Amino acid sequence: MLTLTTFRSVPPFAVGYVRDLRVRWALEEAGLPYSLRLLEFQEAATPAYRREQPFSQIPVLQDEGLTLFETGAILLHLGERCPALLPADPDARARVTMWMFAALNSVEPYVGNLVSLAVFCADEPWAAGARPPAEAMVNKRLRDLDDWLEGREWLAEAFSAADILMTTVLRLLDGMEMVERFARVTAYRERCMARPAFQKALADQVALFTQVPAAA
Amino acid sequence: MLTLTTFRSVPPFAVGYVRDLRVRWALEEAGLPYSLRLLEFQEAATPAYRREQPFSQIPVLQDEGLTLFETGAILLHLGERCPALLPADPDARARVTMWMFAALNSVEPYVGNLVSLAVFCADEPWAAGARPPAEAMVNKRLRDLDDWLEGREWLAEAFSAADILMTTVLRLLDGMEMVERFARVTAYRERCMARPAFQKALADQVALFTQVPAAA
Repeated sequence: MLTLTTFRSVPPFAVGYVRDLRVRWALEEAGLPYSLRLLEFQEAATPAYRREQPFSQIPVLQDEGLTLFETGAILLHLGERCPALLPADPDARARVTMWMFAALNSVEPYVGNLVSLAVFCADEPWAAGARPPAEAMVNKRLRDLDDWLEGREWLAEAFSAADILMTTVLRLLDGMEMVERFARVTAYRERCMARPAFQKALADQVALFTQVPAAA
Repeated sequence: MLTLTTFRSVPPFAVGYVRDLRVRWALEEAGLPYSLRLLEFQEAATPAYRREQPFSQIPVLQDEGLTLFETGAILLHLGERCPALLPADPDARARVTMWMFAALNSVEPYVGNLVSLAVFCADEPWAAGARPPAEAMVNKRLRDLDDWLEGREWLAEAFSAADILMTTVLRLLDGMEMVERFARVTAYRERCMARPAFQKALADQVALFTQVPAAA
């Protein structure tokens, strides 16, 4: 049995963007049923939870005796059961893992830094100065990605776990009018988000985080 | 035959820290011979190279018909031939990949942001304001890592590709007196760097980048 750990509730701005979405999406693509374990925000800092997730974050996936954090590693693990996430051919598989790491190490760090400046540090007096170079770096990565996508439908030969990671990284820029400057990246993101598995995963996350709490 | 692509030369501050070190180290641990392909800095932006590495970066590893970028993916690929990098047992392997992604997605982004502020943006008027929160975030991750290392010699059950990635991420903080605040992280980094394979890889990189150019 697969159990996905996420928070019981999140701030409104995070609804639809919480990283459990990556795992939900992969589970839907793979057709694997799962149950949820819901964590109170303050539980994430407890020693018991930090033995599972030393950085006090979500998601965590439990699969029988195995407990995994890091969405990249969780998607690789699920890919062992699902060639639609990770192809069986060794070279094709290596190219998918290459783009999984690219999403998380060559693109997300710069996107994350810009979002942090634009959302969490926006009122700091130094944020206005820090933002232009951070935007320039994200633009550079988006342009590189746009060039790569010329003539390509997906990052690797077929849809894969890499597209799940890249799409969720690109979605962090929603509302910032940055992805929209790049036609191929925009079309690629839309193509990924049109997949029924994404729509189901997103609807499930939104439903959880917008439900009316039961009276105590 | 394995061919590792790196730059022909780098600025003095980068010597010993260029990311080909991760691949060299893994190749030494695995006992795999390799040859070098040396790239002029301006070649990295050419369309031909960007078909191999869309972000104009190094390293790239070529293995027969396969061309890979992203050090995480390269180390996973090499791990298929070397259980000392990536164990064969599926659960143990998943825990190693978890820490590979943790090094590259939960630690390196914050370390990279701080290094960028301290080195590349140090003279910008806004950098002094941006630095304290960036330092706080790195400190938090180092403290989490320090707690994880209590009673552990390596990130996972045995030395693995994850330790190669984490060590090279921690070394980006050299000279900043941050790692040194955490005794277990400091000892861990020293333990990793004491490995003969690291020493050989480092010496080879330093030798390449400090050699006197031949007269034209």
